[in-house]
Amino acid sequence: MIEQWIYDKLKKDIGVKRFNHSIGVMNTSMKLAKYYDYPIEKAKIAGLLHDCGKLQGEINLLKMAYDFDIILDNVMKVNKELIHSPLGAEIAKKEYNVEDEDILNAIRFHTTGRENMGLLEKIVYIADLIEPGRDFPGVEKIRELAYEDMDKSLLFAINNTLKFIIQKGNLIHLDTIKARNQLIILKNME
Amino acid sequence: MIEQWIYDKLKKDIGVKRFNHSIGVMNTSMKLAKYYDYPIEKAKIAGLLHDCGKLQGEINLLKMAYDFDIILDNVMKVNKELIHSPLGAEIAKKEYNVEDEDILNAIRFHTTGRENMGLLEKIVYIADLIEPGRDFPGVEKIRELAYEDMDKSLLFAINNTLKFIIQKGNLIHLDTIKARNQLIILKNME
Repeated sequence: MIEQWIYDKLKKDIGVKRFNHSIGVMNTSMKLAKYYDYPIEKAKIAGLLHDCGKLQGEINLLKMAYDFDIILDNVMKVNKELIHSPLGAEIAKKEYNVEDEDILNAIRFHTTGRENMGLLEKIVYIADLIEPGRDFPGVEKIRELAYEDMDKSLLFAINNTLKFIIQKGNLIHLDTIKARNQLIILKNME
Repeated sequence: MIEQWIYDKLKKDIGVKRFNHSIGVMNTSMKLAKYYDYPIEKAKIAGLLHDCGKLQGEINLLKMAYDFDIILDNVMKVNKELIHSPLGAEIAKKEYNVEDEDILNAIRFHTTGRENMGLLEKIVYIADLIEPGRDFPGVEKIRELAYEDMDKSLLFAINNTLKFIIQKGNLIHLDTIKARNQLIILKNME
């Protein structure tokens, strides 16, 4: 049961458009949690709050990260868009009173992924990409794989994202490569 | 002046086909060195020996790495093809009497690249891809850029390689991503 003030604060903080996306991610996270037999309430709050660090308005993300004692790596210092995830985890803890580490990590790593992702981290990462409002090349394949094999869906999604990042000339976060390498190594061990 | 025994040993160790490729890389490295005002003799030996770790026949690369005291990261343990570069640097040192650290690093990092590549490392990395015997999608663009802007050529080549690796489902070495990220960050500072 998520209290009403959480919805109200989130909508105010991140704006209606991102709030609606967050509701989509919440619902898809719950669906995936049910499918993969993961506690649904945890998936619900993680999905809802995954973008709580995407604050509206003119935000100085570097200053916010500094204020919240977040240590930024070189990639995040340049690709500041990535900061919203670790920042979101801190905001979830301090402003939404989330204490569960699985939920905080699902928020923290929902953009980059990382090595040794837990199931909730995978659920929110995928739900963020496939919630019904999402439409981009490759999304249908990620959706399809999400209910067949979570790790295959994740690997396909990461490859898809990497191709897009390379196309755009953006920086690649090392955690994304580590996540991908581990998925391939584990797949080859099957 | 490279002594004859070096050519003879290399041809015997890596086989005629790779030897001919190595002569191509040697010549292209010299051309690039001249263009970028780098000592030509160093580029010559680095280009010639860059693949001296690609020994012919049934080679246990893991055992070779162990024998030469090379510490392998997780990616090299799985993608053993990558071992030939650090192995080559050790062979160049111990069997071809190369002492120059720039040459050894050019051999060591010619497959993955790395952060803070020196000019000779860049020359050999690019020469390996564009020597006249090479033909793959994108090679003409890398060739063209090589004589315009070394770093642009390198970034294009890395992106090209990453797309190929993703397509094949192979592991990505973190040094390649670090090299790419640094090139982008430096380009954006111009």
